[in-house]
Amino acid sequence: MDLAKFRVKEGEKLSLRERPTDAGDADRAEIEGQLPEQLERIRRLQDAFYADGREGLVFLLQGMDASGKDSLVKHVMAGLNPQGVQVHSFKAPTGEELAHDYLWRIVRELPERGKIGIFNRSQYEDVLAVRLRGIWKTYRLPERVLEDGEKDFFQKRYRQIRDFEEYLYENGYRMVKVFLHLSKEEQRERFLERLEEPDKRWKFAPSDLRDRALFEEYQALYEEVLEETSTGHSPWYVLPADQKWYTRYLMAELVAETLEACEPRYPEPGEEALAEMARARAQLLEEK
Amino acid sequence: MDLAKFRVKEGEKLSLRERPTDAGDADRAEIEGQLPEQLERIRRLQDAFYADGREGLVFLLQGMDASGKDSLVKHVMAGLNPQGVQVHSFKAPTGEELAHDYLWRIVRELPERGKIGIFNRSQYEDVLAVRLRGIWKTYRLPERVLEDGEKDFFQKRYRQIRDFEEYLYENGYRMVKVFLHLSKEEQRERFLERLEEPDKRWKFAPSDLRDRALFEEYQALYEEVLEETSTGHSPWYVLPADQKWYTRYLMAELVAETLEACEPRYPEPGEEALAEMARARAQLLEEK
Repeated sequence: MDLAKFRVKEGEKLSLRERPTDAGDADRAEIEGQLPEQLERIRRLQDAFYADGREGLVFLLQGMDASGKDSLVKHVMAGLNPQGVQVHSFKAPTGEELAHDYLWRIVRELPERGKIGIFNRSQYEDVLAVRLRGIWKTYRLPERVLEDGEKDFFQKRYRQIRDFEEYLYENGYRMVKVFLHLSKEEQRERFLERLEEPDKRWKFAPSDLRDRALFEEYQALYEEVLEETSTGHSPWYVLPADQKWYTRYLMAELVAETLEACEPRYPEPGEEALAEMARARAQLLEEK
Repeated sequence: MDLAKFRVKEGEKLSLRERPTDAGDADRAEIEGQLPEQLERIRRLQDAFYADGREGLVFLLQGMDASGKDSLVKHVMAGLNPQGVQVHSFKAPTGEELAHDYLWRIVRELPERGKIGIFNRSQYEDVLAVRLRGIWKTYRLPERVLEDGEKDFFQKRYRQIRDFEEYLYENGYRMVKVFLHLSKEEQRERFLERLEEPDKRWKFAPSDLRDRALFEEYQALYEEVLEETSTGHSPWYVLPADQKWYTRYLMAELVAETLEACEPRYPEPGEEALAEMARARAQLLEEK
């Protein structure tokens, strides 16, 4: 599977309307048939990645409500050794979080190198919902931060986020960013399901419709955000999200390919360690 | 007191040999006479700063062993309302800290806005001791991070630290960086004291002499680090450290001037809050 066509290239002018939200002519049976092999490949790679410990990985998921972030997290997790993964869902910030800079809570959730972090929402909420809902205007910040207005405020944030991700890359991390690209029609279907099926009702929030009313505004802003922050080292992927089986397949491919790009290898013991191992082996053999 | 002469200007070529380590002709009695007034000024400023809550402040202290970092922290703390301050001493990193990027542990200790953080050592250890002691060569990091060698590795760190501090400034923080400038002769005196006085012996570590042997190398590297990272928004101050009474005075001035630069003001209640307060007042008056 070549994922390059889903990537947003650095400096590219992005049109979400021209990117697919559905599986096109992909064959579901064929794709689901590959699942066992795919999972085995991920398992093998993650084992070496964990032992290696020189790189850290973060997959972050963004997307409109009902684009399937939660269920995708569940699916990805199922294929990974939980000891080497940590998941975090970023909700509306707490008072303590708001009293810090906006990357503070993100940094705190960074996994150790050798581990994989999965972020359900992320620092990108701070240039998306925070902007469209006008939340940034309510921030208690010094005048120097706010005085040049909305456009300047968010342009600075784009640069800050690029700097942050570059810094992480230079310190042994990779951040892979996934936008779940859902059609407005499919969102409608999923919301109706939430309202009609008793065991899904708990997922419905009145705010769902409030953001749906801004669907087009969100799409336009996502285009800007993805253009501004997709870089060679921390690229955005626009994954079709209308069929969950297809999104899951692509996401698993992305995990596998990213792990491969890290070229994980089991640490080679040094001469001293080898000598010690030889002694330990001899001692164990003698015990008999 | 004008502290500008102790500041390292952005882009300045710094010669530590030309910067004083002692109090010169300053009058100790006169300076200590100003202490009560100085503390009262800081108390007033910090009260408004805390109530305001739009800015966060970090004072970080660097300097050779025995330059007086610990005792300066104690002294500064004594003048501040402890509810609005948090102190952190950065020691040799733990295993968990080493498994993350080097700014991870720094970010975790950032105070909320409205509070003052005092850092005893800091991210600057990662371009000082880590370099001179060759610690960076032991890091388990991907090849891309290490392959261009020492100079490149630390030049990148300078840029990363500048970006980090700029980001903080743009998000309502100020970082004020203090180098305690101690003469080699005064260090010798203080080490001898540590060895000779029973209640100071616990402070002596064999590593003290190891770093003293690199005194000149450290001075040269400090010059480079301060030149590379002193910026308009996050300046370095080179404070003479041979006499503690003088360092304390300068540090207190620095705290006061920095708080003043934040122009702290008590939040003005909005119309709604004012109306509510009026109702509350009326209710309380009626109770009688």
